[in-house]
Parts: sequence; structure tokens; C-alpha cells
Amino acid sequence: MQNNLFIYNSLSKKKELFIPLHEPFVGLYVCGPTVYSNAHLGHARPAILFDLLDRYLLHLGYKVRYVRNITDVGHLEDENAGEGEDRITKKARQEKLEPMEVVQKYLNTYHKNLEQLNTLPPSIEPRASGHIIEQQELIKEILDKGFAYVVNGSVYFDVLKYNGKYNYGKLSGRILEDLQSNTRVLDGQDEKRNSFDFALWKKAAPEHIMKWPSPWSIGFPGWHLECSAMSTKYLGEEFDIHGGGMDLMFPHHECEIAQSTAAHGKESVRYWIHNNMITINGQKMARSLGNFITLDQLFSGDHPMLLQPYSPMTIRFFILQAHYRSTVDFSNEALQAAEKGLQKLMKAVSTLNKLKAADSSAFDTEKLKEKCYEALNDDLNSPVLLSHLFEAVKFINSVSDGNEKIDEAGLKAIKELFNTFIFGILGLKDETKGKEDEHLTGELINIIVDLRQDAKNRKEWDVSDKIRQTLKELGIVIKDRKDGADWERE
Amino acid sequence: MQNNLFIYNSLSKKKELFIPLHEPFVGLYVCGPTVYSNAHLGHARPAILFDLLDRYLLHLGYKVRYVRNITDVGHLEDENAGEGEDRITKKARQEKLEPMEVVQKYLNTYHKNLEQLNTLPPSIEPRASGHIIEQQELIKEILDKGFAYVVNGSVYFDVLKYNGKYNYGKLSGRILEDLQSNTRVLDGQDEKRNSFDFALWKKAAPEHIMKWPSPWSIGFPGWHLECSAMSTKYLGEEFDIHGGGMDLMFPHHECEIAQSTAAHGKESVRYWIHNNMITINGQKMARSLGNFITLDQLFSGDHPMLLQPYSPMTIRFFILQAHYRSTVDFSNEALQAAEKGLQKLMKAVSTLNKLKAADSSAFDTEKLKEKCYEALNDDLNSPVLLSHLFEAVKFINSVSDGNEKIDEAGLKAIKELFNTFIFGILGLKDETKGKEDEHLTGELINIIVDLRQDAKNRKEWDVSDKIRQTLKELGIVIKDRKDGADWERE
Repeated sequence: MQNNLFIYNSLSKKKELFIPLHEPFVGLYVCGPTVYSNAHLGHARPAILFDLLDRYLLHLGYKVRYVRNITDVGHLEDENAGEGEDRITKKARQEKLEPMEVVQKYLNTYHKNLEQLNTLPPSIEPRASGHIIEQQELIKEILDKGFAYVVNGSVYFDVLKYNGKYNYGKLSGRILEDLQSNTRVLDGQDEKRNSFDFALWKKAAPEHIMKWPSPWSIGFPGWHLECSAMSTKYLGEEFDIHGGGMDLMFPHHECEIAQSTAAHGKESVRYWIHNNMITINGQKMARSLGNFITLDQLFSGDHPMLLQPYSPMTIRFFILQAHYRSTVDFSNEALQAAEKGLQKLMKAVSTLNKLKAADSSAFDTEKLKEKCYEALNDDLNSPVLLSHLFEAVKFINSVSDGNEKIDEAGLKAIKELFNTFIFGILGLKDETKGKEDEHLTGELINIIVDLRQDAKNRKEWDVSDKIRQTLKELGIVIKDRKDGADWERE
Repeated sequence: MQNNLFIYNSLSKKKELFIPLHEPFVGLYVCGPTVYSNAHLGHARPAILFDLLDRYLLHLGYKVRYVRNITDVGHLEDENAGEGEDRITKKARQEKLEPMEVVQKYLNTYHKNLEQLNTLPPSIEPRASGHIIEQQELIKEILDKGFAYVVNGSVYFDVLKYNGKYNYGKLSGRILEDLQSNTRVLDGQDEKRNSFDFALWKKAAPEHIMKWPSPWSIGFPGWHLECSAMSTKYLGEEFDIHGGGMDLMFPHHECEIAQSTAAHGKESVRYWIHNNMITINGQKMARSLGNFITLDQLFSGDHPMLLQPYSPMTIRFFILQAHYRSTVDFSNEALQAAEKGLQKLMKAVSTLNKLKAADSSAFDTEKLKEKCYEALNDDLNSPVLLSHLFEAVKFINSVSDGNEKIDEAGLKAIKELFNTFIFGILGLKDETKGKEDEHLTGELINIIVDLRQDAKNRKEWDVSDKIRQTLKELGIVIKDRKDGADWERE
């Protein structure tokens, strides 16, 4: 299998040719959500980026095993400090539900939203609560290798010791000395040897609901552990790609690297891919700033900051319009522009299907196709890909206006190109189809009402009465007025 | 909270007034599917029955915690004999996938099909593979109480010993002496003390993929164990209702009772509800008989035995037309009849919305409502409920034909009644809405084409040309023929 796909590897900080470990198989692990509230804009971006990657790899002929986890174990709000309340249990208390009911409820809406965004489901969607044994086994391995210690029923990863043999901070570029000087001094109550050590297992307070027996205590796993345990279980000790948001790079992914390396003596991930963050009108999204927008709100327009609803495909198109390593700023203006862009693209698809072939063609589809692949191969550059596709849009509109020509083969080639890139790889779809029928119905009724008016003007009362009666049978009532006629559906 | 709901309890073999343990909460546990192939007719029946129960309890004001498990641990084909291959792994080998990819794939289609059938999602959908620790803890309790024994890394439930203190067979009515005389004699190789003993934990063969460490061996839990462990975890040691298909009564539910009673010293389930089986043209459904029909096939019509597609609501209506404790026989004739019945019901809903109020009414909606509740309270008698609703259908049609009258209050009452029972509790929905628009569009175009023909007959060529042009702009092309005109959409 030949490919020329270069991916920016966050570990090496450069674009590298993607070569899978076991061609034609590709192992892809992506950090999924903690399911304790509705999915929001921040969930849409990685979902769409890694869907693009998944779709492109499938298009290239790879067999992708795409694993995306669900974090449903009640982690503490401030994991690092070992403080705060567990967010799922907090929500359970607020909504008077069992924690696992909270998980199920928000998992369902997450799935619904991602389906609306037209992302393909992952091959495996493992849940942290479903892999407690695997996490405990990993802790045992890390303890055996001497990179963790047990205190009062909790187990902590020994970062200093690990750093003596391996390199802690290699992904995020954080240097341990800086971490040491920047973190709070431990007081006598703290169980950790160093403030940058992190929990592998936490002994549960008596009131903690989500807890399991273990060799160390009745407790729960540390947050970073599940991804190391589940990626190993489903993709092996070494696998191709690990993805997630840039905010997860430290400490989450750094700790994952440390855990896997400590346990297996080698690094597990070959390509790290991180999407950049989103902002809203230039600000970070946060509940406290009142600019926290869920996907349901975005799709319905039901949020004080939104001037209108934005369809799932508008959101998808908008996110694909930016390269994944750039920040994306959401604003009504930008979303409205994306909506127009998507409409223009879909209208061209529809126009293309109506074009008549000429004898000759002035468009080099083969060249355009090459450029489309080049864009994707250059670190999944979807904005450049879209700009190439809009060259074809421009040409199609020129043909439609009679200023250009296209032959049979050219028509076929552009149709194939659009199918491959717009629908297949970019995963866009035409949302107007249902609405078109509704619109069409209205237009057709207007024509009939006008024709009836003509008949009335000609004083052909039997014709006008017959039209009124026929429409009535279809549930459409004509209402005559002084200056013409209106209609309404019963 | 007042209710008068009587449920047939499979344990007492009689209808009992339903009184929840902790009003207003109701705990409902239902056995879900083993996800190793597409969902079929046999999955639709319990899904719809327990959705009806869930919806009715919610309507009565209860807060229902509805738990439905997913069996995703690779159990053996012949669990009882400890023989055969594990079905998920077998499928994984056939489809060249990881077992958990098989699970995910068929879980996704199960969810899709159940959404098509308009069932509400359960509050919690726990997976067997996600509760291995809980199952191991339950085994320890049963071992501690002396009702199980360990042999070569496997753990078996000691039915004889259990029966000495409790009553094995009370749900299914099987008597241990009969079981003893009817089951095969153990050969020297068998680990079990008695052939009717069942596995709580099985040591895995080296080639077995889905396995976990345990105090006894690297292995996997017995099939019956997950439901005992997960119902206890999410609903408590004692809970209200346990449901499932009648085929699960023995050995599955019998073993569940034994496990929970052995561990907790008391019975856990207060009401056992079992749906009866389905047949196809009078035969049991089986792959070997060629009459195995998946829900996707049923909805698409793509199966040699099907004369046409049957919509999800046709299937739902058909299943609700029979009482859940009766068998249901699927045939094209019966499904076509259900399709007609559903159409008649939905047409009446639509007619109802168009009726004009008169001064008086000849229909006692209050009486009908009482009868509807009576039907549901009599062990969820949905066929009787439907027959009552069809009394209203008959009346609505009479009003529409001008033979009966209904006043404003009566209209409002029937609309409420229909909303409550047809859409709310029976969970039916109108599937024709999208199709109606398509049909309407065709009808409207026909009217316009006829009017154009009239214009042509009057030799008003400018009118007929204008109509042609206007339709063309809407993407509809008129094709003149000798004897009139046809049209097609571009």
C-alpha cells in the first residue's frame, strides 16, 4: 500500500511520513469525553478531526481499528491536588440519579450529536469503569518495575524516579526542574513524595459512590491510567496513532507516556496528533464566562449569544475550514459565512448533476485531484483541500452560465472527485434534501393558485371551482381575497 | 401514588397488584442481547414489551430506573456442558476483527434498530465485560456461604447443596429429581459434581481471547452471573421487576435466583415478567430453517420470505396487537393486516385534527379512557387497549362522514386520549409525514400538467410555454406525448 501522508507528530515537533506498524492495519486511539454534561463545541473539534483522519485512512485502503474511550469513572475535579468533588457524582446528586444513570444520559446525547455531525462510530468504545481489572494489572506492573509507591491504600507514580531512567516531559516540553519550582510545597498531610507525582489508584472516601475493591484499598483509578490500559488492551503495547485535544498534552498524555514506558520499558505511541483549541468571540469557552455553548444549543440556536441555529453540517464545514493545528474562533459572523460557503458548495453539486456534456472540456480534473490529495497528505490540510474544491465550483458555475464547456468524461471525473472528497473524506452531506421538498410543494401550489386566478379572469368558473376542489382533496384550502388568493394547509 | 396495575408474576403464576418497594421509585431489570450478530425479531418483542411497561410506569408518575444489560463476554455455545466455541470470538474469527469490535458493531445496530422501533433508551445499559470485578465479588460471597466449589481454576454452583436449604426450580417449576434423571451421566473428565451444577467462573483455554485474572484462574464469568451482579449493583439486593423472554426462565433466571439467594440469603426479585416467543409461519425461528429474519431485513423487505418491507411502526403495532404472554406468529398476511390497521389508526388521528366542533357530542370519552386504563392495568393488555382505541376511530370516521357529532370539549378529550395512549404509552408514531410531502408533490405536478394540457387544447401556447418554463426552473421537465404529457424530475 502506497501513501504519501505526512502527519505532524507532536512528539518530534515535525511532519513525518506516516508508516503503520503492521500494514494494512492502523491502530488509532483518541481520548473521548468525560460524560457528565452535554457535549459542547470543544467535543466537536477532535471528533471531526479524527473522523477526517479515519475516513482518509479508510479511503487509502487501510483497515483502521479506531478506539475512542469514554471516561465514566468519577475523577476528582482537581486530580493533581487530590481535591474537589468527583464531577459525575456531583451531577448525580444535582439530578437525583445514580452516577451510572448520569453517564448513560450524557453518553446518549454525545452519540446523538456525533451522529448529527456525521462522524463514523469508532471500532471500539471502551469505558473506564469497564476496565478496572486491566487498570489494576497495569498498576501492578508499574509497582513491580519500581516506578510507583503505595501510601495509605493509594498508589502514586514516582515521577522523579521515572525521570532518572526515562524522560518525563518529552511530549509537552515541560522540564522537571521547572515543575518542581512552580508547584506548591507539600504539607505534612500530603501522601505524595512530590507534588508532580500523580495517582494511579486513590483510596475512596466512605461517601464516594464509584469505587471498586483492589489489592490496595476500595477505591478508584487515577484519570491518566485508563488510556494506557485500554490502548494496550485493544491496540497492543506499541501502536500507530494517539490523538486528542492540545489541552490534554499535559499532564494527561505526558502521564500516559510515563505509565506505558514504565510498565513496558518502551514507548507505545508512534504518532501523537493534537488538535488546537476553540475560542468564542476570541475568549476561552467557560461556564463562568457565560459563553459555554452545547451542540444542541448550536443546532437549535437556543443560546443568548447565537443569532440563529447553525446546522450540524455548517459546524462541520466551519471546523474543516481551519487547519486542525490552528485555533478556531466561533462567532455568528464566521458561522454565517461558513453556512454560505457550504450552501455554495452544495448548490454546485446540484448544478453539476444538471449540466449537459459538450464536445470539449477546459478543465483539468486530474490535476485538481492531485492537488486535493496533496492537501490531505500535507498534515490533513482541509482548508487548502476546500479551496481546491471551490476551483471546481467556480468552473461548474461558469459552465452553467454558458461561459465554459465540459465534456462527458470531465463531468464524470468531477462527479467522482466530489463524491470522494466532499462526501467520502470530508464527510459532508446535503442537509437541504428534506427541506427542498417542502419548498417545492409551496412553489407548486403557488403556480396552481395563479393558474386558477387566470381562469377566474377568463371567467371560467367551472375550471376555477374544479381547481379549488382538487386542492381541497389534497388538504390545501384556497382563500380568495380582493387582490388575488392565498392558500393554507389544513 | 395510586395505581391499580396488576402484573402476572411468573413466580407466583398469578396476576398481582404492583406495589413498588420504594415509591415513587421503580427498579426494572431486563435481560438484553448477546451482541454477536444483527438484531432480529426475537429481540424486538422484549424491547417493545418492556418499553410499554417503562412508558406506562412513567405515565403513572413513577421514577423508573430501567437497567438493560449487554452480554459481551464470550460465553460458550453450550454453557451447561462447558463445550462449544464462544460465539463472539467465533464471529470475530469469521469477520477478522477483535472480539470487542464485533461487540461494538452489533451493539451499534441493536441501538439503531431499537431507536427505529421508538423504544426509550434504558437508564443504565451495563456491560458484562465492564463488571468482572463485581461478578468476582459475588462468586466470593457464594463461596463464603458454601454454595459453590472450586475445581481446577473453575468455580461451580452447588445446586444440590443450595436445594437442601432453598428451593431450586421454583420459577420454572422444574423439579431437581427430574433434572437428575434427565441429564446425562457425568464422565470421569467432568469437573462438576452434578450435571445440573453451573459455572460461576470458567478457567480459559489458552486460545480463549476474552479473559481476565481472578483468584481462581485467568478465565471468564459464567453466563448467569452477570445479571445477578449488575442488578444488585444498580438496583440493590432487592428490587421490583425482572423481565426477559420466556426462553430465559430456565436455566438463566432460575440460576439468577439461586445465585442471589445463596449470596444474600433472600430473594432479590419481587415481580418476574416474561414475554412469550415468536414464530414465523408457525415455525420456530432458526438459522437452520432459513426463516431467520433480522430487523434490518424486515424494514427493507430484503429477505426471500418477505413480500414487501414492513416499517418499524408496523412491527411495533403488530407486536402490541398480541398480549405479551401469547405467542405471536409472523407472516406476510398478518404483517400486511397490521400495516392496514396502523394506517387506519393514523388516518383517524389526522381526520380528528380536521373535524369541526358541533354543539353536542354523542361519545363518552371519559368512559373510553377508563376502559383504556383498565386494559393496561390488566397485565398490560395492549390488544384490548387497541380495540378500545378503534372504537374512537369508528366514531371519528362517523363524524367525518356527517353521521355523528362531536363538540369542542369532546374533540379536545379524544385528542388528549390519543396523545396519551397512542403516542405516549403505546409509543407509536406517524411514519407517513415525510412520504406525504413526496406524494403531495407528485399530485400537484399532475394538476399543473393537466391545466397546461387544457391551455394547449385552448391553443393558448404562451400559457402552456410559461408553465413548462416555470416547472423547468423547479427542476421538473414536461415531456409531451401524442396522448398528453408526462413529467420527470431532473
